[in-house]
Amino acid sequence: MFETLEVGKRIKNSGFNERELPLRQKLLAAQFQLAEHDYPVIIVVAGLDGAGKGSLVHRLNEWMDPRGIETNTFWEHSDEEESRPFFWRFWRRLPARGQIGIFLGSWYTEPTQAAVDEKMSSEDFALHCKQIETFERMLTDDGALVIKLWLHVSRDARRLQLEEAAPGKQQNPRVTDTPYDLRGRYKKTIEVCEQLILDTDSSHSPWHLIEAQDRHYRDITAGEIILKAMQARVSDQKPDAAAQEVTEIDPAGPQPTVLDSVDLSQILDRDTYKIKLAKYQSRLQDLAWQAYRQKRSVVAVFEGWDAAGKGSAIRRVTRAIDPRLYRLIQFAAPTDEEQAHHYLWRFWRQLERDGRCTFFDRSWYGRVLVERVEQFATEDEWQRAYSEINQFEQQLVEHGSIVLKFWIHIGKDEQLRRFKAREREAHKHYKITDDDWRNREKWHDYEAAIDQMISRTSTRHAPWTLISGNDKPCARIQILKTFCKSMKRALEDEVQ
Amino acid sequence: MFETLEVGKRIKNSGFNERELPLRQKLLAAQFQLAEHDYPVIIVVAGLDGAGKGSLVHRLNEWMDPRGIETNTFWEHSDEEESRPFFWRFWRRLPARGQIGIFLGSWYTEPTQAAVDEKMSSEDFALHCKQIETFERMLTDDGALVIKLWLHVSRDARRLQLEEAAPGKQQNPRVTDTPYDLRGRYKKTIEVCEQLILDTDSSHSPWHLIEAQDRHYRDITAGEIILKAMQARVSDQKPDAAAQEVTEIDPAGPQPTVLDSVDLSQILDRDTYKIKLAKYQSRLQDLAWQAYRQKRSVVAVFEGWDAAGKGSAIRRVTRAIDPRLYRLIQFAAPTDEEQAHHYLWRFWRQLERDGRCTFFDRSWYGRVLVERVEQFATEDEWQRAYSEINQFEQQLVEHGSIVLKFWIHIGKDEQLRRFKAREREAHKHYKITDDDWRNREKWHDYEAAIDQMISRTSTRHAPWTLISGNDKPCARIQILKTFCKSMKRALEDEVQ
Repeated sequence: MFETLEVGKRIKNSGFNERELPLRQKLLAAQFQLAEHDYPVIIVVAGLDGAGKGSLVHRLNEWMDPRGIETNTFWEHSDEEESRPFFWRFWRRLPARGQIGIFLGSWYTEPTQAAVDEKMSSEDFALHCKQIETFERMLTDDGALVIKLWLHVSRDARRLQLEEAAPGKQQNPRVTDTPYDLRGRYKKTIEVCEQLILDTDSSHSPWHLIEAQDRHYRDITAGEIILKAMQARVSDQKPDAAAQEVTEIDPAGPQPTVLDSVDLSQILDRDTYKIKLAKYQSRLQDLAWQAYRQKRSVVAVFEGWDAAGKGSAIRRVTRAIDPRLYRLIQFAAPTDEEQAHHYLWRFWRQLERDGRCTFFDRSWYGRVLVERVEQFATEDEWQRAYSEINQFEQQLVEHGSIVLKFWIHIGKDEQLRRFKAREREAHKHYKITDDDWRNREKWHDYEAAIDQMISRTSTRHAPWTLISGNDKPCARIQILKTFCKSMKRALEDEVQ
Repeated sequence: MFETLEVGKRIKNSGFNERELPLRQKLLAAQFQLAEHDYPVIIVVAGLDGAGKGSLVHRLNEWMDPRGIETNTFWEHSDEEESRPFFWRFWRRLPARGQIGIFLGSWYTEPTQAAVDEKMSSEDFALHCKQIETFERMLTDDGALVIKLWLHVSRDARRLQLEEAAPGKQQNPRVTDTPYDLRGRYKKTIEVCEQLILDTDSSHSPWHLIEAQDRHYRDITAGEIILKAMQARVSDQKPDAAAQEVTEIDPAGPQPTVLDSVDLSQILDRDTYKIKLAKYQSRLQDLAWQAYRQKRSVVAVFEGWDAAGKGSAIRRVTRAIDPRLYRLIQFAAPTDEEQAHHYLWRFWRQLERDGRCTFFDRSWYGRVLVERVEQFATEDEWQRAYSEINQFEQQLVEHGSIVLKFWIHIGKDEQLRRFKAREREAHKHYKITDDDWRNREKWHDYEAAIDQMISRTSTRHAPWTLISGNDKPCARIQILKTFCKSMKRALEDEVQ
C-alpha cells in the first residue's frame, strides 16, 4: 500500500510559488462559501511520526481564514478526558455547521498506538475501527464533510526526521519521546496502519494517501484535495449552478509513479529462459495439485498495458496446470445481465471452488482503470471501488484462497514497437484496434490511475506484483517464479 | 427490545379484507414502477423459528407479480456453496436492477445459529455483523433498496407453533428438526438476536420489527412497510413529481402498545410510602458514594407524558445524593450553538466524569418523540436516530457507566385531571401551557412513537423501565427501587 508513496513525487520552488497563490485564493473562497452552508468540514491529518503532519497543519492555517477554522490536537490526555467515554474528547471539539475543524491527532491515534504496542488484540482493533467508521458515518449522515489525509514518508526519510538529522529541518521539539521506528517497530507500524486504512476507508469518508517527503508536494496536494472535496460538496447541493466549478486536479505536473520503480532493462537469454521455464512449470504443476489436495483455491489477476504480453504470459502459466484444475476467464464488455447487477457480480459468479485456480485476464480492476479513465464510472463509483475491492479480496483470503495480482509493465516506446509489429504481421493484425491507439494517447491518465490503484489495493494479504515486461521471456519467468513462491508460502502456512 | 412485540397487535378478518385489496394494488403498481428503474429491491425476511416467515413469503408472492420477483431460500447448504467464500451464495442470487429478490434465510441465518450454539465467539460475531453491514452498504451504495423485516412472536406462541400444537395451524413440515427454544436456548437466542439487530441496523438498511402473532397484522404491516419503502425510494429520485404519493401508514388502526402493559391501578398508602422512601434514599446515598469510589458514573434519563411527575420524582432521587456527586440537566429548546451541531452533541457535552451521576430531565429521546411527532426532524433523521442512540449508550456502558432510562406513564384521564388542577392552583399555573394541550391532542401519535422508541432502544445494556405513574408516591418508589437495584448489580459486577 505504501510503496507508491515512496517514489519521489515533488514540486520545485518555482512550481510551488506558481501554484500556491491561486490555490490559497480558491481555498479562501471555498471557506467563505462554506460559512453560508449548514454543514461542517472535518479534516483529519494522520500519518506516522516524522511525516510532517504539524507543518501541514501550520500551512493550512496560514492559507485559510483563522476565524472559521479551529485546530484540535490530542497529544496530552487530561484526566477530564480519561474519565469519560473515548469519543467524548472528540465530540466536544466538533466544528459547528459552516466551520472547519482540523484534527491533528484524532480518533485514529490511540488505537493505532495501542495496536502497535500490542496492548490491543487484532480483534479489538478491528472492532475499534468499526466504531470509528460508525462515528464518521453518524457525522456524514448528519451532513458533515469528512476529509481524511494520510501522510507517508519513506523509512529512511523518517528516521532522519526523528533523529533530528534531516537536512533543512525546521521542526518543533518532538512530541513523542520514542517514536515507533526508533523503537524498532517499523514493520509492525506499517502493518497496523495498512489495516487501519483498509478498515476505515468508506464511501462516506475515504482516505487520501499523500507522499509527504517533499513538503511542497505534500502541502499543494493536501490543499488541492481539500479544495476539491469542498467544491464537490457545494456542487452536490446545487447540481446545476456549481457543477462545472470543481477544480480538476492536475497532480502537480507529471510526477513519478510506482511504475518508474520497475527496471525495464532486465533481459533473459534464450537458454536460461528455457531452463527456468521448465523448472518453474514443473514446480507449479506440483503446487497446483498440492493446492487441490489442501482444498485451497487460487485467484490470479493479470493486468497490464495493451500489448504488454498478458495472453502469452498466462499461457505459460496455464500450460503448467492440469486443465481440470483451472479456468481462464477473459473479460470483454459486460453482458446485459451483468450490467443489471453490481459491477462485482460478474466476478463473484466466476469464482471456482476450493482447490481450483481461476485466472482473470483483466478483472474487477477495470473499474479503477478503463472505467475511470474513460469516465464510464462516476468518480464516486470508482473511488468507493477501492474499498469494495479490498473487501472482496479479503473475503477470498479469509476463505483460504491465494490471491495473486500481476501488473505487466512495458515502456511507452516498447508498446509502439509492438503495435507496429502487430500491424505488419497478418496473424497478429486482429490484435490491434483503434481502441489501442486511443488508449495509448491517455498513457499519462492511465499511469496516474495505475499508481493510485496499486497504492489503494496492494495489501499484505493480496499484494500486487509489478512485472518488468519489455523482455517477454523475462516477464514470464518473473510471473511463474512469483506464482511458485506465493503458493508455496501459502500452502506451508496451513494455519492461516 | 422485543417486549413491545408481545402486546397483542392484531387485525380482525373484516379489517384484513378491507385493507388487503388496496394494498395489493398499490404493491403491484410499485412493482411495475420499479421495472422502469435501475435499482433492485432486496427484501430480507428474518426472525426466529415459528414466527411465520414462510407464510409471509407465500403471501408476498401471492400479492405481487411473480415475473418480477424471486424468492431465495438458504436452508440446505450445497458443497458448491461451502467451497467458496460465505457471501458467494448470496451474490449469485442478487436480483437484477428493476427486480425484487426476497431472501428467506439470508446472510443473517448462519452467524445467528453459530452464535446461539456458541460455536462463534462474541468478537467473531461482532466482526461478522460488521461484514454484513459492509455488504449491505455496498449494495445500497450501488443503488439497491434493502428492506429488512424481523418477525417476532412471544415465547409461548412460538412453542405452540414449534410443537405443531398451535390452533388453526397450517404449516409446512418444519425445516429445523430442533428449533432453538425447544432446545432450551430461548434466552440465549433472544440475546443474540438483539445484538444482531443492534449491530446491523443502519441508516442505509434499517430493520423493521414486526409483531407476528396475528397473521393478518403481520402480513398487512409487512406489506405496508415494503410499499412505503418502495414509494419513498421512487419519490427520492424525482422529488417533485412523486413527493406526495407516499402512503402514510396508519398502523392498522389503534393498536395496543407496550404502554398498555403498565398496570396503572397501583397505589401506595402514605405510611408505606414514607418508610420505603427513607429506606431507598438511604440505600441510594450509600450506592452513590460507592459508585464514586469505584469511579463508575451513572447516566439516568427521565422521560414521560406532560404532567407525569418527572420533576418531583427526580427530586426524590437527587435528594438522596450528595450534591458534589450529581448534576441535573434540564433540556429546553436547543441553543444556537447546539443547533449548529449534530443533535447528540448537546448531550455528549453534558456528561459528567467517572464516579458522578448525570440526570437528564428529557434527553436525546426528544429526537424520536417530540421531534418526530412535530416533524422537526425528517423521517430519515429520526429513523437513523435509533441506531445512533444505541451506539451512544453502548459507548457509555462500555466505558463503565450505568445507564438508566425511565418512562413515567400516566393515563390520559389522569393527565387531564392534573392539567385542570394546575390551571386552578396559582403556584402551579406556570407549569401548564398551550403546548401541553396541543401535545395532548397528539396522544395517539405519541403512543406510537413511544412504542417504537421502547422497541428500538430498550437493550440489555441500557433497558427502559416503564413506571406506573397515576399514583405519584408509587411512581417515586418504583424509580428509587430500580435505581438501587440496577446500581447494586452493576457495582457488584466489577468485571463488566
